[in-house]
Amino acid sequence: MTDTSRRNFLRGAALAGAGAAVGGRAMAQTPDPAITELPPWQQYLGEGVDAAPYGMPSQYETHVVRRNVPWLTADATSSVNFTPLHELDGIITPNGLCFERHHGGVAEVDPAEYRLMINGLVDTPLVFDLQDLMRFPRENRIHFLECAANSGMEWRGAQLNGCQFTHGMIHNVMYTGVPLRLLLEEAGVKTAGTWLLAEGADASAMTRSIPMEKALDDCLVAFKMNGEMLRPEQGYPVRLVVPGWEGNMWVKWLRRIEVGDQPWHHREETSKYTDLFPDGQARRFTWEMDAKSVITNPSPQAPITHGPGRMVLSGVAWSGRGTIPRVDVTLDGGNSWVQARMSGPSFDKSMHRFYHEFDWDGRPLLLQSRAHDSTGYVQPTKDMLREIRGENSIYHNNGIQTWAVNEQGVAENVEVSS
Amino acid sequence: MTDTSRRNFLRGAALAGAGAAVGGRAMAQTPDPAITELPPWQQYLGEGVDAAPYGMPSQYETHVVRRNVPWLTADATSSVNFTPLHELDGIITPNGLCFERHHGGVAEVDPAEYRLMINGLVDTPLVFDLQDLMRFPRENRIHFLECAANSGMEWRGAQLNGCQFTHGMIHNVMYTGVPLRLLLEEAGVKTAGTWLLAEGADASAMTRSIPMEKALDDCLVAFKMNGEMLRPEQGYPVRLVVPGWEGNMWVKWLRRIEVGDQPWHHREETSKYTDLFPDGQARRFTWEMDAKSVITNPSPQAPITHGPGRMVLSGVAWSGRGTIPRVDVTLDGGNSWVQARMSGPSFDKSMHRFYHEFDWDGRPLLLQSRAHDSTGYVQPTKDMLREIRGENSIYHNNGIQTWAVNEQGVAENVEVSS
Repeated sequence: MTDTSRRNFLRGAALAGAGAAVGGRAMAQTPDPAITELPPWQQYLGEGVDAAPYGMPSQYETHVVRRNVPWLTADATSSVNFTPLHELDGIITPNGLCFERHHGGVAEVDPAEYRLMINGLVDTPLVFDLQDLMRFPRENRIHFLECAANSGMEWRGAQLNGCQFTHGMIHNVMYTGVPLRLLLEEAGVKTAGTWLLAEGADASAMTRSIPMEKALDDCLVAFKMNGEMLRPEQGYPVRLVVPGWEGNMWVKWLRRIEVGDQPWHHREETSKYTDLFPDGQARRFTWEMDAKSVITNPSPQAPITHGPGRMVLSGVAWSGRGTIPRVDVTLDGGNSWVQARMSGPSFDKSMHRFYHEFDWDGRPLLLQSRAHDSTGYVQPTKDMLREIRGENSIYHNNGIQTWAVNEQGVAENVEVSS
Repeated sequence: MTDTSRRNFLRGAALAGAGAAVGGRAMAQTPDPAITELPPWQQYLGEGVDAAPYGMPSQYETHVVRRNVPWLTADATSSVNFTPLHELDGIITPNGLCFERHHGGVAEVDPAEYRLMINGLVDTPLVFDLQDLMRFPRENRIHFLECAANSGMEWRGAQLNGCQFTHGMIHNVMYTGVPLRLLLEEAGVKTAGTWLLAEGADASAMTRSIPMEKALDDCLVAFKMNGEMLRPEQGYPVRLVVPGWEGNMWVKWLRRIEVGDQPWHHREETSKYTDLFPDGQARRFTWEMDAKSVITNPSPQAPITHGPGRMVLSGVAWSGRGTIPRVDVTLDGGNSWVQARMSGPSFDKSMHRFYHEFDWDGRPLLLQSRAHDSTGYVQPTKDMLREIRGENSIYHNNGIQTWAVNEQGVAENVEVSS
């Protein structure tokens, strides 16, 4: 049996319901020098443990990096580097690949000089150094962080060709930190204290207003991500974690928390991070990130290269309001939907991984995914969003993404009417 | 109120049951230049996103690395680099800090040339390339991997001064891979096939016998860890995941799986990875890693530097037989035990994080932790293990670890009789 005839046989078996019959070549019929001969790397001693005190990815994975879109923002210090979602799997984003977005470049904070102040409407204004913070009880939680501008270029139609660029302003890591509630209790919030201002120690002095209710609910003052200290571009040594809410509020290099009795209306919550509606009015305070999903494989940067037959479609979904119990996928632009298979742990306000295994007949595909969150909310189409919000928005685009896949397996960012 | 008097006041408050009263200096009384003056990193634009396509830890964290013990094995290619457990938190080990142990150095496998063969007692011997494997349904699971020799030096008494060296042959990551069961089903295991041999493509051609029951239960043929491709030292591009079982069986650079009807009794399961008893007999096939725990902070590499008052004790626990619902800690060498606080997700055969917050009176401590697993098994003392197994063992030491902390907060590896 030749390679081809076996593959066809296996595809036939799969279609008849035999399940996972996809691959591997029968060996007797196809002697493979990669197996019958000893591979080169088995013929010499490899490098020892002295090589890498802090390990790095394989030399064959140098294409797996964060990438930016040079024209997207004014300059490098105010730009964004996107997570290569199409190269990842599971739900953990490795720290080195977490997207980064700065407004004044990466602050180089000396941890010995780090201080966090709590002031304003409190009984006792307090200053904490890093060690002070580490003497409070800690929690460990996995949460996604999504920039409000993720998919923002897509409001006016398909723009960027790759899920790294359309959806890569998100990462999902395990945080270790102190509940903000404990620090506020330590300072003693006065009765009138209903808002707080979080301020960063970078050159932009990023500031955002956060309602006290959220601060006391599930915010963390975090110093570790995926086990190790925060990365510089993620706010080393301390950032605010505001689960489920837009990333800009997760103030990095956290320097100060002021308690007040009303929001501050600073630049990043008025001029920016608001939603401009068709009538010219802007909606403020769209904090919670609505349920969203995207197919990461196949996608424009990750075409189908193995030809027809069984294949694995994969993607991620998340919601700022809870978990993702269900994701639907369509292969035909929404005419028919099937429920995807969820795999891996499901946490509150965390990324979820889904798969759909199917037998590709080699004909063009129009791929979409649609997330359902634990509140019953269903991810809308882009057209549904535009109907209400027009095309002037920049932020909070959680519309359904479409990839068109042609007979060669090449995928492209396209719009379909809905 | 001075710094010192406030600290004493707060400690008093904590002792009286006021809870988390630990830190922060009242600001009005102690103006802090780090707060009253703008820090240097807020006065210039930081580096932009071009700086690091693949991000790295802060320049202030260069001490957080894997370390080896030069005299421990014959040479660098057969040595071990330990995870810095005392620098980590939560339950995820970042890929760059996962301990590594090789027997022929790191194989540099070209993924385009990678092949996995399944042969022996199967209906159809098969060869898979990397893309073939990725066309099977995948699973995502977090598991610990512990070397059987972890804590091995401690059989003869306290030896190595630091949990990185006594307990650092463990890591805990999220794996993405294909259930081995699916590949075996694809080849069709003959009725007589009750064992398999996993072989690595490194210079040592590492081989281990694994019973079919385990292979069909929960083994994965994994290609990703914490979202990205396996690191070279962890078996890039493919390793076997054998949840809960000793690390040596998790064959890296997985090249071949042979199905047979009995174990192979190769070197690494006879001369090595067996347990030598006092009567000279060796126990084979101690696969499951018994429940174990260690206090990571404070510990010899992580002394108490903040003086008396409230503090956070932290550690990790795991079991090859299930989850860890409970960890006890003692501050006085076992006279009295208290239940630690578990924090973070609890997965089957995964690392668990525990904390114990207490008020340190500045007197010496004898710290121990004791894990209970979901089967009811309780971690034994080292003396209990030695009573049965003597002191000739190298592997499978899951005895309770003791750190002695003196008045200055300095911690040391010690033995206490039990």
